[in-house]
Amino acid sequence: MKLKPLLALLITAHLGSAFAADDPLSAWNSGHAKQAIETWVKETTSSNSKDFIPVSQRYVVFDNDGTLWPEAPLTFQLQFVIDEIKRLAPQHPEWNNDALVQAVINNDMKVVMQSGKKGLMQLMALTHSGMTTEEFSQRVSNWVDNHRHARFGCRYDQLGYQPMRQLLDYLRDNGFKTWIVSGGGIDFMRVLAEKMYGIPPEQVVGSFSLSEFSLTDNGTQLRKTMNGAFYDDEAMKPVAIHLFMGRRPVGAFGNSDGDVPMLQYTSANPTYKTFGLLVHHTDAAREYAYDAHPPASGTLISGLRLAPQKGWVIVDMKKEWKTVFDPSLCAADQSSE
Amino acid sequence: MKLKPLLALLITAHLGSAFAADDPLSAWNSGHAKQAIETWVKETTSSNSKDFIPVSQRYVVFDNDGTLWPEAPLTFQLQFVIDEIKRLAPQHPEWNNDALVQAVINNDMKVVMQSGKKGLMQLMALTHSGMTTEEFSQRVSNWVDNHRHARFGCRYDQLGYQPMRQLLDYLRDNGFKTWIVSGGGIDFMRVLAEKMYGIPPEQVVGSFSLSEFSLTDNGTQLRKTMNGAFYDDEAMKPVAIHLFMGRRPVGAFGNSDGDVPMLQYTSANPTYKTFGLLVHHTDAAREYAYDAHPPASGTLISGLRLAPQKGWVIVDMKKEWKTVFDPSLCAADQSSE
Repeated sequence: MKLKPLLALLITAHLGSAFAADDPLSAWNSGHAKQAIETWVKETTSSNSKDFIPVSQRYVVFDNDGTLWPEAPLTFQLQFVIDEIKRLAPQHPEWNNDALVQAVINNDMKVVMQSGKKGLMQLMALTHSGMTTEEFSQRVSNWVDNHRHARFGCRYDQLGYQPMRQLLDYLRDNGFKTWIVSGGGIDFMRVLAEKMYGIPPEQVVGSFSLSEFSLTDNGTQLRKTMNGAFYDDEAMKPVAIHLFMGRRPVGAFGNSDGDVPMLQYTSANPTYKTFGLLVHHTDAAREYAYDAHPPASGTLISGLRLAPQKGWVIVDMKKEWKTVFDPSLCAADQSSE
Repeated sequence: MKLKPLLALLITAHLGSAFAADDPLSAWNSGHAKQAIETWVKETTSSNSKDFIPVSQRYVVFDNDGTLWPEAPLTFQLQFVIDEIKRLAPQHPEWNNDALVQAVINNDMKVVMQSGKKGLMQLMALTHSGMTTEEFSQRVSNWVDNHRHARFGCRYDQLGYQPMRQLLDYLRDNGFKTWIVSGGGIDFMRVLAEKMYGIPPEQVVGSFSLSEFSLTDNGTQLRKTMNGAFYDDEAMKPVAIHLFMGRRPVGAFGNSDGDVPMLQYTSANPTYKTFGLLVHHTDAAREYAYDAHPPASGTLISGLRLAPQKGWVIVDMKKEWKTVFDPSLCAADQSSE
């Protein structure tokens, strides 16, 4: 009968897709990274395991830029700053005489980068202070609605890494509380994190400044300022974790040397078996390859050096990730697969 | 038959106790406060109500000192400071020449109070900085284990107000996420909040300073400092709520004018029907009566003035609370009931 092979094919195809759907980490290739993740989760969540971690202690922290979404060639937030400066410029004739602002408007990124931290803080002040917290969130939402990533052609909120989004889901399904601890702005990330990653605002920790409270004619307002600026990177990440979370994490996931102190703090947890992971950007075809130019330049040097002795898992994107972006959200990734 | 009345009595008694046990707010007297709480919870959690609040938005904030536990005549944390100074003094001969420290050791509270904010910060520095975050938590635990409240004779962690602890449980049972937002020290409160109130550390917001991260021979450490001190009171409470929580609350519970901005910020929520409540300390027999001496002195003056126009519920402790402390934890309250 001719139907049989067709039937077999249909059944196989059905089972195949069912199996894929059953794999919570289907965007990961079978390999040491996926295996290490699954082993650690099994060891720490099986109630009869010697490494069992009570649910109340399952706190894991993720960097954002370069760990959950791309950071090259510019961070999303810096692109937002640039787009906002251009949008706001017509209302600010006084900016005509500002060399740095003019460089932004003219896409002279060399001048922008050379302006260093001082220049960046000036641009942050122009785009991240003065408005109410609600207005700022609305501006970020509007920006997301009206801009597409230059290379991938997708909305920015479609560009979370699919394997990492699956990892967040997988960890939550196993009782872990997922946190972002990032150098990105706390108010900027919070607009996106719930939709993109399923992470509520209070579990998003980032760089921040203090807002200013006042009464208004019909209520109250919080206005963003640059006061008390806290830059959540490097040694300040463990500080922020203690301040916001109040527990030492059992897992830490990053991609650069700025995440190393957070991984060190986590690995030194005196009570529980911990997990550390670093995303290694090796995939110029599907994303970017930029983080390590041995022996000494790049954004991930000490992380790679420390990983073997600390037992941190290095995720070589090119090898370990089946897809980079979710093709159902964004087709960017498909051409180069 | 003689059995009938007895049977009836037994059934009535049984039903009576069953009803009491079924009442999640059994430590509250029937009255306007209890009724207002129940009405708001019903209105905002019944899915067919016009005032329904989605679970993801049910964030409520509680002050701690004077709202969840006593603050008179000294806050628990100031008592901890005093007890710590006395405990540590033998190791610090250099304190012999310090007039303020000597006043603490000699229980000369008049001098301590007159030293003002500057003096208080000095005492805080001596007892809240220099040690690791873990050492500090251990010191707070040791203090709780080894001290009793002078008037009530109970451990400090037995002195949460029973009606408010029930209210926290009741709100959580109805899908609300309960937060502490207090002028108390964040690290101090976090040691106690989980056990006393069922509130995990990340939902405890308070005054804070930044810790300092470093590597050690066998791991990492976070050492407490006085840097970047943030005093979480008055207009800084909404600022802290935005920073830590990232949402505007739908309910706010306090007891003093320092909580008024937090209640104003909550009441001005543009989207949801909110709830505001102020505990009014009127009960010298069972606790303390100290907060309002009209027309102008006291810790709860503008709160009482604003309450009627804002719709905030004033909880007259003497009238509204059946018990102040949980008699199963602490017998303090029983003699005067």
